[in-house]
Amino acid sequence: MAAQTILFDFTLDKDKTADEEARLQVAKILRNELEQLFPQLELAYSMESPENGYFAVLHENKDTVITCRIFQHGLLTLNVEYFLPDGKEPSISFDTMRTMELILRQKFDSDRSKYLPPIKRGGYIDIYMTSSDERIIEYDIDKVVFEARSPFQKIQIMHSKSLGNMLLLDELQNIAESDLIYTETLMCRGVENYEGKEICILGGGDGALLYELLKENPKHVVMLEIDELVMQTCNKYLNVICGDVLEKRKSDQYEIIVGDCVEYLKKFIAEGRKFDYVFGDLTDIPITDAPEGETWDFIRTIFEHSFKVLKPDGKYLTHGNGSTCKVQLRLFEEQLNLLRPKVKFTTTKAFVPSFMEEWLFYQVTFA
Amino acid sequence: MAAQTILFDFTLDKDKTADEEARLQVAKILRNELEQLFPQLELAYSMESPENGYFAVLHENKDTVITCRIFQHGLLTLNVEYFLPDGKEPSISFDTMRTMELILRQKFDSDRSKYLPPIKRGGYIDIYMTSSDERIIEYDIDKVVFEARSPFQKIQIMHSKSLGNMLLLDELQNIAESDLIYTETLMCRGVENYEGKEICILGGGDGALLYELLKENPKHVVMLEIDELVMQTCNKYLNVICGDVLEKRKSDQYEIIVGDCVEYLKKFIAEGRKFDYVFGDLTDIPITDAPEGETWDFIRTIFEHSFKVLKPDGKYLTHGNGSTCKVQLRLFEEQLNLLRPKVKFTTTKAFVPSFMEEWLFYQVTFA
Repeated sequence: MAAQTILFDFTLDKDKTADEEARLQVAKILRNELEQLFPQLELAYSMESPENGYFAVLHENKDTVITCRIFQHGLLTLNVEYFLPDGKEPSISFDTMRTMELILRQKFDSDRSKYLPPIKRGGYIDIYMTSSDERIIEYDIDKVVFEARSPFQKIQIMHSKSLGNMLLLDELQNIAESDLIYTETLMCRGVENYEGKEICILGGGDGALLYELLKENPKHVVMLEIDELVMQTCNKYLNVICGDVLEKRKSDQYEIIVGDCVEYLKKFIAEGRKFDYVFGDLTDIPITDAPEGETWDFIRTIFEHSFKVLKPDGKYLTHGNGSTCKVQLRLFEEQLNLLRPKVKFTTTKAFVPSFMEEWLFYQVTFA
Repeated sequence: MAAQTILFDFTLDKDKTADEEARLQVAKILRNELEQLFPQLELAYSMESPENGYFAVLHENKDTVITCRIFQHGLLTLNVEYFLPDGKEPSISFDTMRTMELILRQKFDSDRSKYLPPIKRGGYIDIYMTSSDERIIEYDIDKVVFEARSPFQKIQIMHSKSLGNMLLLDELQNIAESDLIYTETLMCRGVENYEGKEICILGGGDGALLYELLKENPKHVVMLEIDELVMQTCNKYLNVICGDVLEKRKSDQYEIIVGDCVEYLKKFIAEGRKFDYVFGDLTDIPITDAPEGETWDFIRTIFEHSFKVLKPDGKYLTHGNGSTCKVQLRLFEEQLNLLRPKVKFTTTKAFVPSFMEEWLFYQVTFA
């Protein structure tokens, strides 16, 4: 079950939209053309104002409803909306819409027009996600593979035709089968040498980081993940990226502890246990304008405790955020700069397929 | 100059939308909530039908216009549209909209709702592009760097905050600074050995393939590109991916010929000139349901001529299309299977950042 909303817009010569008379002329042209496509079209309502231009509602049997605005600044927007039952083909094809755009563009003598692919609304599967900088991205998701709520978060596995299975936590893209580059950039594969090293992963419940690290022959990896259900889910649906590391929770080379990583970090600090590498593979940097609130407190807590379990030449590696989120990344870096003893950092970045954007990663060492 | 269209939808219990009375009740709740955000809200028009539910137009001073549909199948759509002058902040913030979504969801007792980031319409820069399977993708384009029309096509360089400069030909994504993976997958870097080999590139005007091939020490590369302006443009704005290979048109190791590649292929055939590799770096596979029309004829012509200049153990390497375009890829493969002498092929794929999708590439040899 879904409604389809199809959006067109046309840039018009300002003369054509400057006053009521001119706008009515444009509206007339529009209606004539629409009638070719919708023979039973009726004008239901229109309104006009010198400051806000023309607005009209047209419809065919109250089924397909078309709204049109002619802004006095030389812009016409056209919204077509109708209900599309499951499994039924759209009543108006992509090609028809494209043709209508081109004809209207010509009739309006417009030098710029736009026709967006139909927006599907109300479907069971949410195919529209948002980038870190609030851009709209339509995914080729064709199946909800798994959905559950753990005590910590909403966990979903969606299947994308091109990205494979995707893990979503609280409806945010987390990692997908397509995203080896994410893990490789986080761990600086080919740059860092993990052989014989002691490593601690904070979070990392999808198992991908652990799986890739174990290929590099470390001495030991301990992973602290709070959400048992995330691990069970990834073990079942994301083997492409996590192999079998989530199946067995302990080996000579690694141990997965289900619990609050802060508690375990405190324990490690008390024991004087130290690591060559600590990975912050927890929540993303929040999108806020100030470094306040629960998540920022959590980030600061993680920082403080992590550096207390790092060897003097150890490294703290973590993901940042979308590389266009300058404000949030700066806030994150300011928190790093507040740490004592002082730290310094470098960054790397990679385009992550399932995020559909470039992501920034941090490598932090003692200054 | 742009209009903003903000789309919400809510899945409702079917009882709440089953008849006129129930729908009017929902409309009343909606109006009450909208009045919190838009104090001067007026109901301008409404209509009802048993088959197509409720539709209403609300507005504030004819400026912000809100249309609402309540479909009897248990779906409510809400479209908010207003004009946003250049440089002005949206009158309704992202957070406000999100809050409104959550409040309405609660008031409607809805278990599913969606709020899409505002759609910007009529802007000078077109930030919405379409994937090969007609999905909508919003890019972080902030500047039109260059725009011109050659005798062959419209050429644009757009700047994306995260992808760098992007080349668009006839408004389609072609290659960007972020897309080394595209060229590496096309040429099967690390798998094919180009050292001492003779190579012919058909098209390739962006220079990226030539630039990367020259790093592998081939004997000689000849590139046949028809559009002089594409090369000048890429030489100026895409040095990250093409280096300086488009600056000088000839060296001991390569030659760029500006002209129709079919004519030159015919000439090579007449001369008996043969290559170890021929690259088809021309137009994409057209998105059509049948292998007919000018572009498919062109593809077949290219195939036929290319295999006549290939050594018996030579390879024809080319890009296909988005990996989800099964129909078009099958048509393409059918054309390959029609060739005599017979050929066989393998495929590789890569997620290309500026395409925001996975692309398929072909490696064709004599069977």
